[in-house]
Amino acid sequence: MDHKGRQQHLRDALSTQRLDALLITHLPNILYLCGFTGSAGALLLTESKIVFFTDGRYSQQARAEVQASRIVIARKAPLAAAAEWLAAHHKGSRPAAPFRVGIEGEHLTVAARTRLAAMLPSRFRLREAPPLVEQARMVKDADEIARIRAAVLLGAGLFDRALEAIRPGVQETEVAGAMEYAARKTGAQGMSFPTIIASGERSALPHGRASEATIPEQGFVVCDFGVILTDYCSDMTRTVFVGRPSDDARQVYQAVKDAQQAAVEVVRSGVSVSEVDGAARKSLQKSGLAKYFTHSTGHGVGLEIHEAPRVAGGQIETLKPGMIITIEPGVYVPGKWGVRIEDMVVVTERGCEVLTPTSKELIAI
Amino acid sequence: MDHKGRQQHLRDALSTQRLDALLITHLPNILYLCGFTGSAGALLLTESKIVFFTDGRYSQQARAEVQASRIVIARKAPLAAAAEWLAAHHKGSRPAAPFRVGIEGEHLTVAARTRLAAMLPSRFRLREAPPLVEQARMVKDADEIARIRAAVLLGAGLFDRALEAIRPGVQETEVAGAMEYAARKTGAQGMSFPTIIASGERSALPHGRASEATIPEQGFVVCDFGVILTDYCSDMTRTVFVGRPSDDARQVYQAVKDAQQAAVEVVRSGVSVSEVDGAARKSLQKSGLAKYFTHSTGHGVGLEIHEAPRVAGGQIETLKPGMIITIEPGVYVPGKWGVRIEDMVVVTERGCEVLTPTSKELIAI
Repeated sequence: MDHKGRQQHLRDALSTQRLDALLITHLPNILYLCGFTGSAGALLLTESKIVFFTDGRYSQQARAEVQASRIVIARKAPLAAAAEWLAAHHKGSRPAAPFRVGIEGEHLTVAARTRLAAMLPSRFRLREAPPLVEQARMVKDADEIARIRAAVLLGAGLFDRALEAIRPGVQETEVAGAMEYAARKTGAQGMSFPTIIASGERSALPHGRASEATIPEQGFVVCDFGVILTDYCSDMTRTVFVGRPSDDARQVYQAVKDAQQAAVEVVRSGVSVSEVDGAARKSLQKSGLAKYFTHSTGHGVGLEIHEAPRVAGGQIETLKPGMIITIEPGVYVPGKWGVRIEDMVVVTERGCEVLTPTSKELIAI
Repeated sequence: MDHKGRQQHLRDALSTQRLDALLITHLPNILYLCGFTGSAGALLLTESKIVFFTDGRYSQQARAEVQASRIVIARKAPLAAAAEWLAAHHKGSRPAAPFRVGIEGEHLTVAARTRLAAMLPSRFRLREAPPLVEQARMVKDADEIARIRAAVLLGAGLFDRALEAIRPGVQETEVAGAMEYAARKTGAQGMSFPTIIASGERSALPHGRASEATIPEQGFVVCDFGVILTDYCSDMTRTVFVGRPSDDARQVYQAVKDAQQAAVEVVRSGVSVSEVDGAARKSLQKSGLAKYFTHSTGHGVGLEIHEAPRVAGGQIETLKPGMIITIEPGVYVPGKWGVRIEDMVVVTERGCEVLTPTSKELIAI
């Protein structure tokens, strides 16, 4: 991973933003910039230096993982250590001049900001920086695409386990457990989010985590799952039918499949994310099901399962080559059923490549 | 669960804190106060009302779960919906009088606070409230203790699976996978944190998540794991030895076991958490190992795997009956090995009850 290049890119943004330093506290951003995978750290980037702060629990791990950064193992919280370092190292030739420290407003808590401000001498000014690292992370480089591709393939393999496990009378958690065990066996670091197995009426819950409910004799089962492999996430959804699907069931499935395909087809560099969302909604309008599509069409995936851009109406982000997003329209009829189909795609100049290899034909079990 | 009682307790704190409302955004606090288990919500408590805000994805789930609160399903983000509701409902008889809204400073981000402030008319004043809900959550009621007890027992059962799976040459992730599958099979909602299986030299990493490393012929294996059952977490650690332990290995194990026991023995209502931490450290000083004990002695466990109180030096919290904490000293010699032993205990008037049923004798595999 090109940690130096990422750091330099961010440093270039400092002067544009009129910042003297950027204090990074969001762990996935820290991982992106220096490789640290632990759970306590802060990264401080100035015009000339980059310093990583962690505590004693992570001294070995930091030395093994952290790239292209000075490492400070502190006896205090990483944020406090960073504040202390700043105060000590930036007395400068003009000790009265303001020193602007950018913070990650979407991640730093109000209380942490208050503590940070109290620890810094008055010449230090805290400024909410735009999400500079998240913006950089939207476009994946070749190394990242390769890792995500591998995660998607490993994740997709779990669907076969789901198909084996899904039977009337089996608990949803058993299906999830079988998939998660297979993930571990095939080398996943873990699941990228709590596995959703939502069967029967529960399929109408867009976020129906696997529960103790048993798979019914007849009905849809939404399977939404993903893995983490070499730090990158996968995410996919397939919906199967247990029993013999009625014409009505086939129609709603086909409508979602068409909407998913319609959205995939508009993806290409230069298109806005709201156009992609609109394509799925417009497709569902034909069958009068758009009102049951109650969430956005997709999201970026990378070091985090949900990251920028949001693929939703009203969002102004424009797709660029190397962005990796999900396309996952769904239809949820409360008390009755739900269907969702989700692929991950990588944006190219002329369209996109669908990374998820799994068929989208309706499977009846 | 006594949601009404919890809400009333919090309402009583409003006037003490000179607040007109409290806006709760931390999801475990929302779950504690009204029962909602989804991932998007805000709860607003005023002198006379309690209103829960979520979005369309959770309309069914909110109606099924949310107790003793009015439910608003909004087309916008829950925080924005709460701001709008406040502005509309609290024009009041004295429209110019300030209306103080407490926010959860340890959870609300700087950016969310900025957006919230921008959405509210100028008479609304945002104030960082103390962690009122976390303070209430420290002491568990009988229902909560029963649930945690069940989670601890289910979690402890997984150690048998670990003992079966741990063999030289087996990957750490396979051990974790076998345990996680067993957890699902026995009805756990999931693991309460990423399973730690740290073998050989990796046992010296206090947070050594199961990796692709294989269990060596000879050495310690730290197993730190927990489950979620009916929303409550369990947490336990046992360290086993693969091969024949040397005298040196037996000594370090015994030292940690003694330190763990020493800390358990000082737990009782009225004792400060720093005394508990000190008891473990003092015990390790006898064998000269205290310098290798690089983290705090424990933490509260409940709806979250880490919650108040922190059982650490310098902390002023005093134990009360019904608090449930971990006692988990460890010794980590970098490049060599590590040992940690962890139980969960519930504080009583005269001491504590150790919830974890598992033996702490050294097991050689």
